[in-house]
Amino acid sequence: MSIVFRPQIKDISAYEPGKPVEDVMREYNLKRVVKLASNENPLGISEKVKKAISDNIDGLALYPDGNATLLKESISEKLNIPEGNILPSSGSDEMIDLISKAYINPGDEVIMADITFPRYIQTAKIMSGAPVIVPLKDLKFDLDAMLDKITDKTKIIWICNPNNPTGTMNTEDEFMNFLNKVPKDILVISDEAYREYVTRSDYPFNTHKILSDYPNLLVMRTFSKAYGLAGLRVGYTLGDSDILSYINRVRGPFNVNSLAQAAAIAALSDDGFLKESYDVNLEGKDYLYSEFDGMGFDYPKTETNHIFVDIKTNGGEVFEELQKRGVIIRPMPGNFIRVSIGTMEENKMFVEKFKEVLNLS
Amino acid sequence: MSIVFRPQIKDISAYEPGKPVEDVMREYNLKRVVKLASNENPLGISEKVKKAISDNIDGLALYPDGNATLLKESISEKLNIPEGNILPSSGSDEMIDLISKAYINPGDEVIMADITFPRYIQTAKIMSGAPVIVPLKDLKFDLDAMLDKITDKTKIIWICNPNNPTGTMNTEDEFMNFLNKVPKDILVISDEAYREYVTRSDYPFNTHKILSDYPNLLVMRTFSKAYGLAGLRVGYTLGDSDILSYINRVRGPFNVNSLAQAAAIAALSDDGFLKESYDVNLEGKDYLYSEFDGMGFDYPKTETNHIFVDIKTNGGEVFEELQKRGVIIRPMPGNFIRVSIGTMEENKMFVEKFKEVLNLS
Repeated sequence: MSIVFRPQIKDISAYEPGKPVEDVMREYNLKRVVKLASNENPLGISEKVKKAISDNIDGLALYPDGNATLLKESISEKLNIPEGNILPSSGSDEMIDLISKAYINPGDEVIMADITFPRYIQTAKIMSGAPVIVPLKDLKFDLDAMLDKITDKTKIIWICNPNNPTGTMNTEDEFMNFLNKVPKDILVISDEAYREYVTRSDYPFNTHKILSDYPNLLVMRTFSKAYGLAGLRVGYTLGDSDILSYINRVRGPFNVNSLAQAAAIAALSDDGFLKESYDVNLEGKDYLYSEFDGMGFDYPKTETNHIFVDIKTNGGEVFEELQKRGVIIRPMPGNFIRVSIGTMEENKMFVEKFKEVLNLS
Repeated sequence: MSIVFRPQIKDISAYEPGKPVEDVMREYNLKRVVKLASNENPLGISEKVKKAISDNIDGLALYPDGNATLLKESISEKLNIPEGNILPSSGSDEMIDLISKAYINPGDEVIMADITFPRYIQTAKIMSGAPVIVPLKDLKFDLDAMLDKITDKTKIIWICNPNNPTGTMNTEDEFMNFLNKVPKDILVISDEAYREYVTRSDYPFNTHKILSDYPNLLVMRTFSKAYGLAGLRVGYTLGDSDILSYINRVRGPFNVNSLAQAAAIAALSDDGFLKESYDVNLEGKDYLYSEFDGMGFDYPKTETNHIFVDIKTNGGEVFEELQKRGVIIRPMPGNFIRVSIGTMEENKMFVEKFKEVLNLS
């Protein structure tokens, strides 16, 4: 007789990692591979962060500060909110799991969009929650339709703003109108992983300032994108201190590693790097827009560092052909692909190979 | 109306971190603080590991390899077992949570000792499991009593060998006799966090060689102790590939950060550092044994890097007094304290202050 796993994970797939860059190089005999698949910062990490990491290597035999005291202090100072309203995590990936473990009872309904970040549905299923999927409308979150789905079993609503993978956003007016209509016993989570790339002024930039008025609001931010720390795993969540205290109970004691804590503190102090990341993204976005326009492909305007494009042919096949030519993007359901915005040199290499694959001149 | 957390976490406490060393120094106006509280490697980290970390800083804007390919290869080569039988995690802390999430149904019984590593009971409770606590016998795992507790609801048995915090171990004969009697539909997890410090030859050193005969056995190892990487968060679990594949489904895609992967590979190749860590531990152990003997305090012989001592007075009070004097140890229930074995200089400072607190000459 073998060990029986929980029935809840029967239809959860393990993460299927893409091929490592080295493997792609070897397999297709390539000298250069450009990876525009995971919405990473093409500038790498800032010099201040590198120094902070180097300065902390000697202390790695000690466990991390389980309270992430100094990181909380830095975030507190930067955003002018109390430390009790801040909870760091090992990236948003971990936080989504922690929130689900603290709050989702069997049968609790968890409202989310389709298509959006896949961890919301996986963690809901793991905790025996009932995912309630609301299709996007014009590739944007349909907040009214989400409100319509609220029942007395609703526990959590996940709002990815701007959304991954579509790059679309909801405005401050739309979000506040929605938030005001959500009953106060339902957690609303604003996942703002890409907020640093937003160009529109009507984005809800100030969610961290309304926490005391909306104790059911959690605001999730990350250092993995514009701050360039994806490899280290660190993010933080803002919210009511009581809500966070229960999430804190299911957290592993040393969830954020020591170098991630030090690096995040340094990253917060480097506005110049953030500005440069924003500028490079903007330039690349304009370039890719004009190229996709020229090819006659539609895409929603993106407020992130990636573009969701309808390429009018199977995305999976184009992904395979691009990979053979040294460009890795992310195939999406149907005729869509998601392309991360790289440096201009990377963007141009993508465009060149993309045209080659599609037989465009 | 406020957000209702899951009833399962009602009596789970958040981790209470000890005071950071810096805070202790400031509060008590100390020039030096010796921390012998968390079973960390007093030698720090090896030079090879430092180099591996430095060499990988530039790549941190990229997500970690979600498959930990190179780390699996290194472990596979070192232990001569297939990569499919290896699953890295962000320390054993995370793996205990992952195993629980993959396997514990509501009401499933989870057998563990008292006193042992606290994450076993917390994760069982989070997953609505029923912890079944079996007292230690002479401060050692009572494997027969654990067998007696098996019912048709038993799902997991946690064996911490050698045990934290008592430092005691079960022999290979004892463990194999136990394992042979456990029904094959029950997961037995051998948590071997301290195995590198074991001095006795009758310890079950070869659990990784019997995996194909015992598909219900998982072997959990870590880089946080003798390898000196507590701050980076990395460990690995060995077991049947099917069992691991279900654990893999509940794992976050990028659970082991990039520097942890690189550091662990380097650590595996540095036998010299491991040998030195073992030797320093042995010297410190002999010294502390003789000091405790001289003071008339009992302790079980330890096969780890920490000693569990009956100090015949309240451990919490002695902890407080030691901390004021710049030595941090871990108070344990009743009259016990747990002291990590440090460098000889650290051990001597502990003994000096300990005698001072207890008014021993």
